[in-house]
Amino acid sequence: MTLAQGLDRTDPRHTARLTIACADRKGIVAAVSQFLHHHGANIIHSDQHSTDPQGGQFFMRMEFHLDGLDLAKEQFERAFAQQVAEPFDMNWRVWYTAQPKRMGIMVSNYDHCFLDLLVRKRRGELDVEIPLVISNHATLCGDAEMFGVPFAQVSVTKDNKAEAEQEQARLFREAGVDFVVLARYMQILSGEMLRGLAVPVINIHHSFLPAFIGANPYRAAFQRGVKLVGATAHYVTEELDAGPIIEQDVARVNHRETPETLMRLGRDVERQVLARAVKAHLEDRVLVSGNKTVVF
Amino acid sequence: MTLAQGLDRTDPRHTARLTIACADRKGIVAAVSQFLHHHGANIIHSDQHSTDPQGGQFFMRMEFHLDGLDLAKEQFERAFAQQVAEPFDMNWRVWYTAQPKRMGIMVSNYDHCFLDLLVRKRRGELDVEIPLVISNHATLCGDAEMFGVPFAQVSVTKDNKAEAEQEQARLFREAGVDFVVLARYMQILSGEMLRGLAVPVINIHHSFLPAFIGANPYRAAFQRGVKLVGATAHYVTEELDAGPIIEQDVARVNHRETPETLMRLGRDVERQVLARAVKAHLEDRVLVSGNKTVVF
Amino acid sequence: MTLAQGLDRTDPRHTARLTIACADRKGIVAAVSQFLHHHGANIIHSDQHSTDPQGGQFFMRMEFHLDGLDLAKEQFERAFAQQVAEPFDMNWRVWYTAQPKRMGIMVSNYDHCFLDLLVRKRRGELDVEIPLVISNHATLCGDAEMFGVPFAQVSVTKDNKAEAEQEQARLFREAGVDFVVLARYMQILSGEMLRGLAVPVINIHHSFLPAFIGANPYRAAFQRGVKLVGATAHYVTEELDAGPIIEQDVARVNHRETPETLMRLGRDVERQVLARAVKAHLEDRVLVSGNKTVVF
Amino acid sequence: MTLAQGLDRTDPRHTARLTIACADRKGIVAAVSQFLHHHGANIIHSDQHSTDPQGGQFFMRMEFHLDGLDLAKEQFERAFAQQVAEPFDMNWRVWYTAQPKRMGIMVSNYDHCFLDLLVRKRRGELDVEIPLVISNHATLCGDAEMFGVPFAQVSVTKDNKAEAEQEQARLFREAGVDFVVLARYMQILSGEMLRGLAVPVINIHHSFLPAFIGANPYRAAFQRGVKLVGATAHYVTEELDAGPIIEQDVARVNHRETPETLMRLGRDVERQVLARAVKAHLEDRVLVSGNKTVVF
Repeated sequence: MTLAQGLDRTDPRHTARLTIACADRKGIVAAVSQFLHHHGANIIHSDQHSTDPQGGQFFMRMEFHLDGLDLAKEQFERAFAQQVAEPFDMNWRVWYTAQPKRMGIMVSNYDHCFLDLLVRKRRGELDVEIPLVISNHATLCGDAEMFGVPFAQVSVTKDNKAEAEQEQARLFREAGVDFVVLARYMQILSGEMLRGLAVPVINIHHSFLPAFIGANPYRAAFQRGVKLVGATAHYVTEELDAGPIIEQDVARVNHRETPETLMRLGRDVERQVLARAVKAHLEDRVLVSGNKTVVF
Repeated sequence: MTLAQGLDRTDPRHTARLTIACADRKGIVAAVSQFLHHHGANIIHSDQHSTDPQGGQFFMRMEFHLDGLDLAKEQFERAFAQQVAEPFDMNWRVWYTAQPKRMGIMVSNYDHCFLDLLVRKRRGELDVEIPLVISNHATLCGDAEMFGVPFAQVSVTKDNKAEAEQEQARLFREAGVDFVVLARYMQILSGEMLRGLAVPVINIHHSFLPAFIGANPYRAAFQRGVKLVGATAHYVTEELDAGPIIEQDVARVNHRETPETLMRLGRDVERQVLARAVKAHLEDRVLVSGNKTVVF
Repeated sequence: MTLAQGLDRTDPRHTARLTIACADRKGIVAAVSQFLHHHGANIIHSDQHSTDPQGGQFFMRMEFHLDGLDLAKEQFERAFAQQVAEPFDMNWRVWYTAQPKRMGIMVSNYDHCFLDLLVRKRRGELDVEIPLVISNHATLCGDAEMFGVPFAQVSVTKDNKAEAEQEQARLFREAGVDFVVLARYMQILSGEMLRGLAVPVINIHHSFLPAFIGANPYRAAFQRGVKLVGATAHYVTEELDAGPIIEQDVARVNHRETPETLMRLGRDVERQVLARAVKAHLEDRVLVSGNKTVVF
Repeated sequence: MTLAQGLDRTDPRHTARLTIACADRKGIVAAVSQFLHHHGANIIHSDQHSTDPQGGQFFMRMEFHLDGLDLAKEQFERAFAQQVAEPFDMNWRVWYTAQPKRMGIMVSNYDHCFLDLLVRKRRGELDVEIPLVISNHATLCGDAEMFGVPFAQVSVTKDNKAEAEQEQARLFREAGVDFVVLARYMQILSGEMLRGLAVPVINIHHSFLPAFIGANPYRAAFQRGVKLVGATAHYVTEELDAGPIIEQDVARVNHRETPETLMRLGRDVERQVLARAVKAHLEDRVLVSGNKTVVF
């Protein structure tokens, strides 16, 4: 009996990742590792983090080979739920690398993050499927075609926003996406849209020290003479740009920059940071803890 | 005839630095370089920047050896003023490396920036004299003594702040400081104090992406789960932490940090950034352009 | 009268860049800036560097608008040669932004540097024309097509190397390239090939602290447990990987890496470093000084 | 009954760190975590790494509170040895934070790494005792005094090297040091000295891309025009500068540098890298794996 239909668990490339979040208390690591050991799982990587051993939250990620496992997928998960997860009141999930995650992408006109994701996927750097790209413009349709990725245009205006979002959410649900990446999508997703999608959404935005708010932050950063431009990738919540941060980075700039060169340098940081955030998400390294992340 | 009393201009270590800011127009570089060439100055380094060749601001820094100069210091400066600076309406100054700048320091209880400056000065990394340190506490008096630096304590309370600031400004004026560094001085300088000092003041403060405001920014940064902590060195203006930025940098942090480790990592960035800003200021590399800096 | 056929010198986007290298002596900056000023050139940027004011080398880059110039291109260059360059025995050149440089590219099978250059060119980040890509394999032919770039395959074997190089050099000469970029081209260019090309050649290679030599440096770096992987972009000389360095950078790695993840992280550094080197070269910011570079 | 004489295990600041290295096989994590759980240890942090789940090496670091422990120190360690360590043939050790490690320091004339360690220790950033500093010169004796650290001068000449090393090893043994840091100690330790010390020795040295060997690497780096200077901290083995790397970093440099400014910038990297390596060692985060390190 195989672990899942079409999944050969003796294939050495196939591993599973168990992620756990729960209230911290004694004995969690012992219970989990003993369960895995008992059922023949060969642990490759294991990470734990406790925000506070007294009354804090506990986070764990375990990656293990499937080839020694004595249970099929469904049995394994049911047994874990009963014997370990329920007693410790765990928020948990098992992901199988044999089933790559399905990533929806939303874009507008900027191509830098979008092309970076497509190229990395093609090169095998990101183990992911991309069943659908949705844009409010036609600009990047040709690029999607070049890389063989389905592209849908859903125009968004002031008047049709609610309707457009319903359509977008419907298309992503039909495409069966596991998460959505806003690769410089220049529209704010409503709370309704986020609930309609019902999957994690990752966004990338520019960041400065200090922060600049408003329509043209690169111009504001230019006028303030910043020496660094940065980018932040985060999970989207209803509060704009205030969701759990996954990854950040900066690049040095100097007095010679114009708003245009700041934007160009910013784009390079944006795509690097987004790619690292997406990779961490794909590898189940990011666990959300309130409004923060644990990135194993 | 010597360039200045006690200044031997044939000493190869002695150079002068001419800094210029003015409205941009054609012919500035030609006029300055011809003047220096005509009087035998041997240019070592030259930097120019124009914010916009049409109607922008022009900035220049020229460093030159004194040993070929055919004029004494006073004559040289008078001739430059008449022949070059006035026709172009320049804001200009000449600094002589034979006369190291005099740096006043203000500190409270944190020692990391303070000790870093003292050690770098002793090691010869900063070509500077430190005629006076003023603190509102006695904590760092022993450290000042260890490094042979005069230390004055001027307590500041809610009631005596205006008076205390007058005393501080008076002490710095008497000590003949060319600029003041706030090496984690935990009081805000009033506009009156800044005018009383009448010299540039450099401050260092922590910086985050996004920015956190209020009494305990490291705790706010911890609660938001930032992946970078940073520091910004800037010239002090009356508007708190909004003066021209000289230097910035960041350090990576992760989910394991506590507010305490964030502070510790932040301290390392703070002292590095402050040291670089002070060094750039000492070498006359920082020209202020409105609320921005040009750092050559 | 126009500066050159088809070149409208009143177009504000059109500037010229004058690069100069010569033995340092007094009066160079004055002579150059006076010449430009006299002929109505409006200087936008100016950089100088002297390796040693006594007996060293002097390097200069001046960028200026053409719209005030009182001479046509040929007259301007002839006058500069006679009045300035010859008296100072200068190695010099003027480049006009209206005539973008023509970049030849050599690739083998890795796509990361190649695609990065194509995407940046398309996005307008690199002001360059790409008249020809030559590969010893057919692998990247489709990518070249996607981006509308001419592609020629010239197979190289142990037996035909000299002949193949002659063919490659001939193709590049016919395509009129101003410089060639080895975007992970896995063959060593012979001295004869370099002389046959007669244009600058830029290479990118991985770099480690310490250095690892031989067939599989990422494996060697893995076995040594390095904490950084890096990349170096340099001009190619006959001595392998020992030409003047243009740009370098590193990325942090940890004990979890495999030789494969080291390579992947290394690729990201490689393409960033190569893109920065190519951009600096395109903007005439890189002046070669013996076996070093001055990068303005 | 207390865990150890003078050690109050109910003190929340007191934790223990268990480090383990052994051949990887199934069940290790389960065995260790169950043992700790059974004896009431409250795990705060736990890190594992396997070089290869089939036939590789396994590394583990567990930090736990002592206040729930049902055994005294000696009993606890004896039980662990019998029940867990021996069956799995583990190389293991328990460290108690209540007993800070004792660090010996060796210096010559450079003060930057030395002062950095002393200042960080005083500030509480490094939880360490410094029972002895040994130098082959008297230069830094005053600094040791300033910070209240015992200082011994042992001159080393070509003729007395073996004898001097014996004396140094004897002094360190008498001082009871747990490890030794070469804070820019300009002598090579012989294999005999390393065996005589019988504790880990950490060294810091400059690093470049590419590597430069010989008496004056900063001059060689200057002549090659490197764009980065770096530093590597590593454990000392008999093969010079080839021991397991703990930490590395770099700083950007440009064509303006002289050999002197390269050294100054290099010093800043050296002291940062050494401080991070020492901190990681103090917190038992560094496990040696052949000629590599695992840094948790």
